[in-house]
Amino acid sequence: MTHRLAFIGFGVVGQGFADILAKKEETLREKYNFDFQIVAISDMKLGSVYDPEGLDMTKIFEMIENGQSLSEYPDAETGWEPIETIEETNSDIIVEVTFTDMETGGPALDHVRTALKEGKNVISTNKGPVAQKITELQRLAEENNVEYKFEGTVLSGTPAVNLALKNLAGCEINKFKGIVNGTTNYILSKMEEGMDYEEALQKAQKLGYAEADPTGDVEGIDAQGKTLILANTVMDADIDLNEVEREGITELTLDDVQKAKDEGKRWKLISKAEVEDDAIEAKVGPEKIPLDHPLAGVMGPTNALTYTTDHLGDVTIIGPGAGKEETGYALLVDLLSIVD
Amino acid sequence: MTHRLAFIGFGVVGQGFADILAKKEETLREKYNFDFQIVAISDMKLGSVYDPEGLDMTKIFEMIENGQSLSEYPDAETGWEPIETIEETNSDIIVEVTFTDMETGGPALDHVRTALKEGKNVISTNKGPVAQKITELQRLAEENNVEYKFEGTVLSGTPAVNLALKNLAGCEINKFKGIVNGTTNYILSKMEEGMDYEEALQKAQKLGYAEADPTGDVEGIDAQGKTLILANTVMDADIDLNEVEREGITELTLDDVQKAKDEGKRWKLISKAEVEDDAIEAKVGPEKIPLDHPLAGVMGPTNALTYTTDHLGDVTIIGPGAGKEETGYALLVDLLSIVD
Repeated sequence: MTHRLAFIGFGVVGQGFADILAKKEETLREKYNFDFQIVAISDMKLGSVYDPEGLDMTKIFEMIENGQSLSEYPDAETGWEPIETIEETNSDIIVEVTFTDMETGGPALDHVRTALKEGKNVISTNKGPVAQKITELQRLAEENNVEYKFEGTVLSGTPAVNLALKNLAGCEINKFKGIVNGTTNYILSKMEEGMDYEEALQKAQKLGYAEADPTGDVEGIDAQGKTLILANTVMDADIDLNEVEREGITELTLDDVQKAKDEGKRWKLISKAEVEDDAIEAKVGPEKIPLDHPLAGVMGPTNALTYTTDHLGDVTIIGPGAGKEETGYALLVDLLSIVD
Repeated sequence: MTHRLAFIGFGVVGQGFADILAKKEETLREKYNFDFQIVAISDMKLGSVYDPEGLDMTKIFEMIENGQSLSEYPDAETGWEPIETIEETNSDIIVEVTFTDMETGGPALDHVRTALKEGKNVISTNKGPVAQKITELQRLAEENNVEYKFEGTVLSGTPAVNLALKNLAGCEINKFKGIVNGTTNYILSKMEEGMDYEEALQKAQKLGYAEADPTGDVEGIDAQGKTLILANTVMDADIDLNEVEREGITELTLDDVQKAKDEGKRWKLISKAEVEDDAIEAKVGPEKIPLDHPLAGVMGPTNALTYTTDHLGDVTIIGPGAGKEETGYALLVDLLSIVD
């Protein structure tokens, strides 16, 4: 069967994923028996287009390059809003990659809900809906016999979520601890080389690791959301964002960094959660990590997570934490796990 | 449906797995919808027993404890050889945990072949058949619409194999590098603390990390087998054992270890393989690793593997490399992936 994909949102991550699909089309067919068409795109800025016979993606990328609206795509339905695109197209897999709103889940929450109710699979890198309503959404998916997959919400394509849910199935995970924000890890790495906080932040912004407004990263808000997602999915915690304690790295000085170094330690922004007596404690904050701890060696934009389990003790995964291709890849692996 | 398991071999790993199944019976039913009976055991030393209605495992463990042969189990078929047990019992999942013969695959190879031909799933921690005949066995599994799973052959229950085959699906893995033998890693860790080779080996033997005849570990033969398995399964290399270069750690002196330390490095027995120009180079041997490399921090009996991929760059997994419960758990996760 040929799967039909509809993209809700088509920014950096969506385009990164479409790139990978185009490059690997043949491999996906031969090795994974996966045939697909992209039938619809609905993006707030780029416009929207639907062709039940499949879009010509080379043409789509040319139009974007030339600054044309997708609504000018010839002989196709155009101007459909996300909900209409989810409900009315012949798609069977919805790629939800609109902007993240951690506080409410944002419009993405409606997109995911609608898709699952329509009996369509959802693959998404959007943290909002997972953080806000994972229990409801997983129930919806089950009721409608479809899947909701979100590997890319934590550690981009590094398989942190699937590792816990699939490869550690049957284990009790009673604790996790890790570095889940690449921007702050990069800044701290640079500070250890002697740059002060402001200089390191500017360098991170230049390299595209930090946004113009870095608040979400440096105040630990991004890490807080990811910690919530891990606690609620991997540990079935069922907690809210405000139950994850949060402290950023903005108070750390070059002097603090140097002092830690003298003690044989290294500051890291650590995300963690632990179950004790049936209660869960979840937290984001800077910690001094001894240099011989596996997390101490994780430098720059690399991320890492250690799960503490009953049968295996500690299992750690280390890999990229962000990036267009890396996050786009998360959608591919989710897709393959659905069609497998 | 109730799954029916038959154990071929019932040594440390098999008993470890049966322990886990007994402890988690309720969780497996509630969380994974997995119901099972153990209907048969055929072990060279312990004897063999088959009850189509399911064995009383408390009784089985009591009999083993008391040194009784399983052939004395009341009101059951007894004395069946492995092949008869695989073919004639009402089992649908075969747990192959007999001894490993890396050179020929040993009787285990016949066990796996027979089971797959009979249309029965196989879960196994036995390195022999995977190393010798993975391509044939995977084809057999596919033809008979069953699965052959072997997570426990590398890094015990640490999900190194499934990570590559499932969670990195769609990625090209063009290189791996890691520490896949816990015994040698423990010995090298102790030598760095100042023990000489002989003393460290004796300590490893006392703790059960090394066998009375340590040749398989210290000469790199165990690591060679695991390297072959990874090359043939994760990189589709289709090579033989003698195509994996091998050097052990027996030539390393306390002086070598000290010198590396002075250079900011650390000796590790490294397993690796790399594809270049469509040819594969696979090797096991001691290497000096810089202290800031993720593999340098992997100490004692812990193992680690770094996969180099097209979409994600390096992804590293770190976890236990051996142990009764850890390897037993590998069988559980394989089982859950089959019945999922």
